[in-house]
Amino acid sequence: MPAVRGRLTSKVIRIFVTGGRFDKQYNELAGMLTFEDTHVPEMLRLGRSRVEVSITTLMMIDSLEMSGEDRGLVVERCRGADERRILVTHGTDTMIETARALAEALPTIGEKTIVLTGAMVPYAFGSSDGLFNLGSALSFVQVLPAGVYVAMNGRCFEWNRVRKNGATGIFDEIP
Amino acid sequence: MPAVRGRLTSKVIRIFVTGGRFDKQYNELAGMLTFEDTHVPEMLRLGRSRVEVSITTLMMIDSLEMSGEDRGLVVERCRGADERRILVTHGTDTMIETARALAEALPTIGEKTIVLTGAMVPYAFGSSDGLFNLGSALSFVQVLPAGVYVAMNGRCFEWNRVRKNGATGIFDEIP
Amino acid sequence: MPAVRGRLTSKVIRIFVTGGRFDKQYNELAGMLTFEDTHVPEMLRLGRSRVEVSITTLMMIDSLEMSGEDRGLVVERCRGADERRILVTHGTDTMIETARALAEALPTIGEKTIVLTGAMVPYAFGSSDGLFNLGSALSFVQVLPAGVYVAMNGRCFEWNRVRKNGATGIFDEIP
Amino acid sequence: MPAVRGRLTSKVIRIFVTGGRFDKQYNELAGMLTFEDTHVPEMLRLGRSRVEVSITTLMMIDSLEMSGEDRGLVVERCRGADERRILVTHGTDTMIETARALAEALPTIGEKTIVLTGAMVPYAFGSSDGLFNLGSALSFVQVLPAGVYVAMNGRCFEWNRVRKNGATGIFDEIP
Repeated sequence: MPAVRGRLTSKVIRIFVTGGRFDKQYNELAGMLTFEDTHVPEMLRLGRSRVEVSITTLMMIDSLEMSGEDRGLVVERCRGADERRILVTHGTDTMIETARALAEALPTIGEKTIVLTGAMVPYAFGSSDGLFNLGSALSFVQVLPAGVYVAMNGRCFEWNRVRKNGATGIFDEIP
Repeated sequence: MPAVRGRLTSKVIRIFVTGGRFDKQYNELAGMLTFEDTHVPEMLRLGRSRVEVSITTLMMIDSLEMSGEDRGLVVERCRGADERRILVTHGTDTMIETARALAEALPTIGEKTIVLTGAMVPYAFGSSDGLFNLGSALSFVQVLPAGVYVAMNGRCFEWNRVRKNGATGIFDEIP
Repeated sequence: MPAVRGRLTSKVIRIFVTGGRFDKQYNELAGMLTFEDTHVPEMLRLGRSRVEVSITTLMMIDSLEMSGEDRGLVVERCRGADERRILVTHGTDTMIETARALAEALPTIGEKTIVLTGAMVPYAFGSSDGLFNLGSALSFVQVLPAGVYVAMNGRCFEWNRVRKNGATGIFDEIP
Repeated sequence: MPAVRGRLTSKVIRIFVTGGRFDKQYNELAGMLTFEDTHVPEMLRLGRSRVEVSITTLMMIDSLEMSGEDRGLVVERCRGADERRILVTHGTDTMIETARALAEALPTIGEKTIVLTGAMVPYAFGSSDGLFNLGSALSFVQVLPAGVYVAMNGRCFEWNRVRKNGATGIFDEIP
């Protein structure tokens, strides 16, 4: 962890958007849930965030639809990023799989802090956890040492010490 | 900072509520802004937070109304708390003054991580930064070493290295 | 139309709920749109409505799923209702078909004012027209003479003088 | 009331905005409630309203601050309007006084349907009745015969048959 001096010395934080419920929205003509542009910039404005970020949308899909190739792209982009601290928004269903892929590639990715987060209810809906999770993950990524983490439900876990409880949707520590 | 093992080993986080815009709401009969019960439990539910917390409302006032006595109460309660990690919700106007009072009392308070946060727009209103700030502060408090901090705008500052910009309402590092 | 004396002399307004987007919501465990209880009572509370109403959920389905039998149930219940003024919440896709069924049965239904309304975006989502439409339809039903109407987009139409524009989702008068 | 033919034959509806809680909002730098631009256009968009309207802001004040001169302006503008159907958004505290001024001037105003409405909670806040009231009043104004009315709580009253209950904020018929 960087020494805490004044403001936590975090240069630009990279944000890679991959979709998931976090960014799903309702298309009123089709009458279905779809993806359009990411809401992350709008959410950061709402939070009056002044963290310097660079946002890139890699894809906008359900994590259940993610292929090995898609995960490979996330790994590749994390490797190629200049930033040392990276936040990845991701569907909750296979978030841990992508975390694993990143952890396995960490030797080639380098000394980077990568935090994955998502939402149980799309930000576009009234009762979303999205804004809370974004504030949470953006904070963890600024202070944690290099490694791959999952941040959900206000908590943060090393990638290999967490699983998603299928019945409740909650992310818990593997005992 | 505690070693990162699995889930960040944070036992119960103490939350002291003091009011500020964070918790202001609109009283429709009076036609004015007032304080009622804190919204923090509701916000944690919305965020699907699973962090163990113990919430205590110390007072519900504008931080401009805070007296030395009020700040003394905050210090006293932080000193008496069993928890080592404490989040204080506070009005933004004099948040740094209370942070100073806490820092000065730190030798008697003990090895505790105390993070203060607030909101520019009340949570009860449509465009609030409250939920984002709560997620942010709750995360910083779980990982930072002992000390007194101010968490606003997605960033975290040591108490004596930050000031509130009166014109913009943003919290910036003192150069 | 009843003579306007003081308050429009409308006794209890019957509200029959049939579902449609009006009441759809997001099920976070399934990750899909589903129906649970109707939101109409909650919406009337939000609107501080003091109109006396009696709310009955007849079914909770997409209007595309409505069978002749389902529409028959709506007709039958409108016939059997004691109230002379009835509001029916309904999916927009086949709202006019149900309106037609009601109009055709009107001789046996009696001198009743029946207004159908719905929403393009579910009330449970942030950008819903539901609350506006409910206020609108609840007002039209209190003052219009006996007949069957469709109330959408702030306007009210006789059932046989309106069609839904498939491209825009707007309800327009048949020229 | 105009004969109901197809769509209610309502040409352009004039909307005069005078302020009141309907349009109040939170100024985050000042930390107080203030008036900025009216939210009516935004609310009509949210409701997917297709009613043709012409919106004019006459003033943006608390109705408790309204002077005889202010009310005179409302009367004058209603008199000068080409439209026969007029909606006036107004603070609830003295809405009935303005309604009285309009009714007294009705002989010189002409055969016009004027409906006043407001909100108990500002539209800008989470729990507002504003959108419901707007949908309601916009509907009443399209169908009622010439006269001056107050539309609140989903109901509509002739101006001299209603009073505001100070304790509950509800508008009730004068028995």
